[in-house]
Amino acid sequence: MICEIISVGTEVVTGDIIDTNAPYLSKELISLGIDVMFRVSVRDDDETIRQALTLAKERSDLIITIGGLGPTYDDFTKEEVASVNGLKLVRDEKIALKIKDYFEKTGRVMTENNLSQADIIEGSNPIDNDNGTAPGILLEKDGKTFILLPGPPNELKPMFENKIKPYLINKTGKFILERTVKLSGIGESFVENDLKDLILKVKNPIIATYAKTGECHVKLTAEGNTMEEAQKILAPYLEKVEIRFSKYIYGYDSDTLSGKAVELLKKKGMKVSFCESCTGGFISKTITDVPGASDVFDCGMVTYSNEMKSRLVGVSPIALSKVGAVSEEVAHQMAKGVRCLSGADIGISVTGIAGPGGGSDEKPVGLVYMGFSTPTSTVTKRFHFRGNREKVRQSTVNAVLSALINYLK
Amino acid sequence: MICEIISVGTEVVTGDIIDTNAPYLSKELISLGIDVMFRVSVRDDDETIRQALTLAKERSDLIITIGGLGPTYDDFTKEEVASVNGLKLVRDEKIALKIKDYFEKTGRVMTENNLSQADIIEGSNPIDNDNGTAPGILLEKDGKTFILLPGPPNELKPMFENKIKPYLINKTGKFILERTVKLSGIGESFVENDLKDLILKVKNPIIATYAKTGECHVKLTAEGNTMEEAQKILAPYLEKVEIRFSKYIYGYDSDTLSGKAVELLKKKGMKVSFCESCTGGFISKTITDVPGASDVFDCGMVTYSNEMKSRLVGVSPIALSKVGAVSEEVAHQMAKGVRCLSGADIGISVTGIAGPGGGSDEKPVGLVYMGFSTPTSTVTKRFHFRGNREKVRQSTVNAVLSALINYLK
Repeated sequence: MICEIISVGTEVVTGDIIDTNAPYLSKELISLGIDVMFRVSVRDDDETIRQALTLAKERSDLIITIGGLGPTYDDFTKEEVASVNGLKLVRDEKIALKIKDYFEKTGRVMTENNLSQADIIEGSNPIDNDNGTAPGILLEKDGKTFILLPGPPNELKPMFENKIKPYLINKTGKFILERTVKLSGIGESFVENDLKDLILKVKNPIIATYAKTGECHVKLTAEGNTMEEAQKILAPYLEKVEIRFSKYIYGYDSDTLSGKAVELLKKKGMKVSFCESCTGGFISKTITDVPGASDVFDCGMVTYSNEMKSRLVGVSPIALSKVGAVSEEVAHQMAKGVRCLSGADIGISVTGIAGPGGGSDEKPVGLVYMGFSTPTSTVTKRFHFRGNREKVRQSTVNAVLSALINYLK
Repeated sequence: MICEIISVGTEVVTGDIIDTNAPYLSKELISLGIDVMFRVSVRDDDETIRQALTLAKERSDLIITIGGLGPTYDDFTKEEVASVNGLKLVRDEKIALKIKDYFEKTGRVMTENNLSQADIIEGSNPIDNDNGTAPGILLEKDGKTFILLPGPPNELKPMFENKIKPYLINKTGKFILERTVKLSGIGESFVENDLKDLILKVKNPIIATYAKTGECHVKLTAEGNTMEEAQKILAPYLEKVEIRFSKYIYGYDSDTLSGKAVELLKKKGMKVSFCESCTGGFISKTITDVPGASDVFDCGMVTYSNEMKSRLVGVSPIALSKVGAVSEEVAHQMAKGVRCLSGADIGISVTGIAGPGGGSDEKPVGLVYMGFSTPTSTVTKRFHFRGNREKVRQSTVNAVLSALINYLK
């Protein structure tokens, strides 16, 4: 099956936004055994979109469009897909009702153009959008398949994962089994190098590595004629990966560092508190990304100045003037201080230099100390992260969550 | 001048790498008044590349290719650009010498295929690559212009900035002026509806709206024969937008809500502190995204439970049991509490229900109270945000920063 992805959106062509949807879809489709051959970006212009669709219809079997499904004047995708297939748009009353409801519930005024999102291509299947108002569209005509997806990544990804992927798996007639092993504390190039033999030589399952800040994911995709066959093919390679990287594994598939941390804390009936300096609230924010975090977290402090470190969590002013805020000693006191103050089982602190300013020869940008305090002991760890301010802070958050997970396991 | 960008590279089509070169080039070209109309990604396959170039030659005036200039067997770009123009490749001895030199200097062994990088299209101009071995190529033929650029961003960007941009500015003879007006607290469909007349009727400047969570940007792009002319064309429309949306404007161009807030606080020599519940540290994290935030921020509290609200910032336990944590009264006490505790000039609190759980008929998911405390007064504001947990939290952060900016202006 030859697949073409068309990203519709002037802001994509002009470079005002970077298209992350198309690479995401490409990876997913290829892991399903679908050949993504062409990727095109076009502006929000009806004629241009129509030309791109006409060409796609000639050379591809599966055409996926991204964007242009909204309620505004320059949203043309549905019209043009209808047009190149000689079809009309029809209003779906069920969707129209859902849209009206949504605006009522949130107390917002609905402008008339919002209802255009309820117009679908005749003969097509609308695809529910659980994260936005514009439904997706699935159209099968003349041996071609068109899938129209909404532009915002937080709407496109769940829609693809939950609705499109199962449909495509069914369509290809194959059974695909995917397993992602999530690693923390090891770089992608190490992992890739270690798995080089498997990545190059083994065609089924496909083994691929993905780098994220502070994490590396190993995805195995096995293909078989039945689910049992796919499982049999996957199992030995999954085991190889688990053995090779056992001490770095924190979870699988949709696990996240924060989700895993909250899960393990809940299991043990423990609470954690944070005292942050350089991360400025990022760790507390990340833990509370997880619904139900209130079972395991109730206190976070952002002590962004020396004075606040003393005043709020009792760090000694003498230590601060002697060794400075970015030091083992201060990290130690911050962690112990917030644990005692909050009554949590674990208190974790971070103090460091996120950059771009603030570094020196002795204490460079990226230097971070973490304090980890429990009733039995308080230890510290030193890190030197690379990258810009954002990267240093994100790496720190991930290192803290990894440390928490490792302690709890 | 109609421009098309062709990214050559299998790893781009498969999504293994995210193409940042094309968006970068698009932005630069558009700011030079060159209409980037099409963006295409193709695999490292000679036939596919040739087809893409043939189509490009029909519909575009300026064709820019990215990648495929290297020494390996799957680098086809030069060959195919030569082919669609009926030209040959000829070895440039000066470049060949430069390549041989480079390998000697760095003590690396040169394989024969490396010399293929010295083959250029007959009649073209090679473009020096100061950061790699493969030169770029500039070819003008039959009224079309082809520019072949290397794939690695650290080679492409300097080459474009230093060599291509001056050439293109000279070629177009136009001046482009861009201005983005940034709004907060108003949805994109309202803004677009209001500007409908201008967006549709006015061709110069081009006016477009872009939606972000909690924000809406209005971009105006004017074109003239001189910079003064472009400015004259832009000014009246910029003024119209400013008048229509005056109470929602928080900044321009590269301003961000957090950056603007920090800037205004610095100007006034003021400090802010936050007491967060539902946002869990997100506001403090966002303020500290800005380098230099330590001049205006030193204390953030995450009081994620009722007990912590009492213990850390002095919220009355009676109020908590009477009206609950998500209430005007508690928001009021949290804001006042953190301000007095920290000694900051402004204390801001948020307490609400981020979801997905925790909502009720009386207090639904998305309900958030903000407290805003200064030495002269403490006020509260009620919000009802829509969307999932992430959206509610992000919307809350943006609403707080908007309120802070409005107060400071």
